Amino acid sequence: MNFPSKLLENAVNEVSQLPGIGKRTALRLVLHLLRQPADQTAGLTTALLGLRNDIKYCKNCHTISDRELCEICENPSRDNSIICVVEDIRDVMALENTQLFKGHYHVLGGKISPIDGVAPSQLNIVTLINKVKEGKVKEIIFALSSTMEGDTTNFYIYKQIKDFDIITSTIARGIAIGDELEYADEITLGRSLIHRVPFENSLKML
Amino acid sequence: MNFPSKLLENAVNEVSQLPGIGKRTALRLVLHLLRQPADQTAGLTTALLGLRNDIKYCKNCHTISDRELCEICENPSRDNSIICVVEDIRDVMALENTQLFKGHYHVLGGKISPIDGVAPSQLNIVTLINKVKEGKVKEIIFALSSTMEGDTTNFYIYKQIKDFDIITSTIARGIAIGDELEYADEITLGRSLIHRVPFENSLKML
Ligand SMILES: [Zn+2]
Ligand SMILES: [Zn+2]
Repeated sequence: MNFPSKLLENAVNEVSQLPGIGKRTALRLVLHLLRQPADQTAGLTTALLGLRNDIKYCKNCHTISDRELCEICENPSRDNSIICVVEDIRDVMALENTQLFKGHYHVLGGKISPIDGVAPSQLNIVTLINKVKEGKVKEIIFALSSTMEGDTTNFYIYKQIKDFDIITSTIARGIAIGDELEYADEITLGRSLIHRVPFENSLKML
Repeated sequence: MNFPSKLLENAVNEVSQLPGIGKRTALRLVLHLLRQPADQTAGLTTALLGLRNDIKYCKNCHTISDRELCEICENPSRDNSIICVVEDIRDVMALENTQLFKGHYHVLGGKISPIDGVAPSQLNIVTLINKVKEGKVKEIIFALSSTMEGDTTNFYIYKQIKDFDIITSTIARGIAIGDELEYADEITLGRSLIHRVPFENSLKML
């Protein structure tokens, strides 16, 4: 693309660095902002900068939070002896929508993936193992998506906690293998949580 | 969607105001920015603010430009007696890519659309008519997309310039009726420019 304006070219280049947004889509979005009042661009950039610079991660479960401790971890009526292990905040939001889970979450921040260069040390795994070692955990529920990376991550954690006196389970798969949690409807997702199976059982099916 | 963070919610709401971007896509984009170095968000927001606040529109042809007069209007080797009428800068960029057109452009900034509430007075039509009245224009080439709105706009302008001693033409349609110019390949688009037909001929075909 040959741009008649450096300002336009810069904006398109920056926007097209976002995943799934090509140069053409970026140009369309940027021209839209030019047609809208300047307030909209100001609001957008202020919100993005505010998020990027001021966001916190809950020191207990690592989910995105405005404070040191997230609302779930802070809530005394939630059971901190049952921990649901998820990839990111979208999974927390999807599971919270079911209103069926009253335990805590543990956000790994990704899945182990040799192809994408994600090593276990880059994920919030040590803090999860430590919670188990402290002896307050009764059950760990694995709720990662059932992809190769999800299975690898589940198994990596399972090996380190299997000798402790805890229950390990995975959410039942009412949803198709390989599907992302966030796209499941609430009923299917809620049911898969209630029908969770011992992790050892899920290994036998592999 | 229930967000565990106001900062996150704000960012998602702002991003999802962009056309074609739903809440889910907005959340995905925003979480991506959180995983990237803060530099990327800073670069993105700086580029958007720079564009929105500092952009100029060429005082002659109304295209987006970094200066008062765009490179095309400033170029003495371009023929200002042939004016190609387009909707927006994407059309200018697409036509410039063919390297076949050596005249000037006139960017209307949209198409007349009663449904979308776009009246002729909101478009750069008066300045085009004035150029014709000044007597320096030999030919007007209509290059709006051949939609209902495009045809309406062409005809609205045509009525006001048809009594002047100029040629009016439309680019030949090698591309499907209703298609946007920017998605046409360069060869098709270049050919449609060379094979442009008198505007009166295009009326007979309606
Ligand atoms: Zn927390
Ligand atoms: Zn110009």
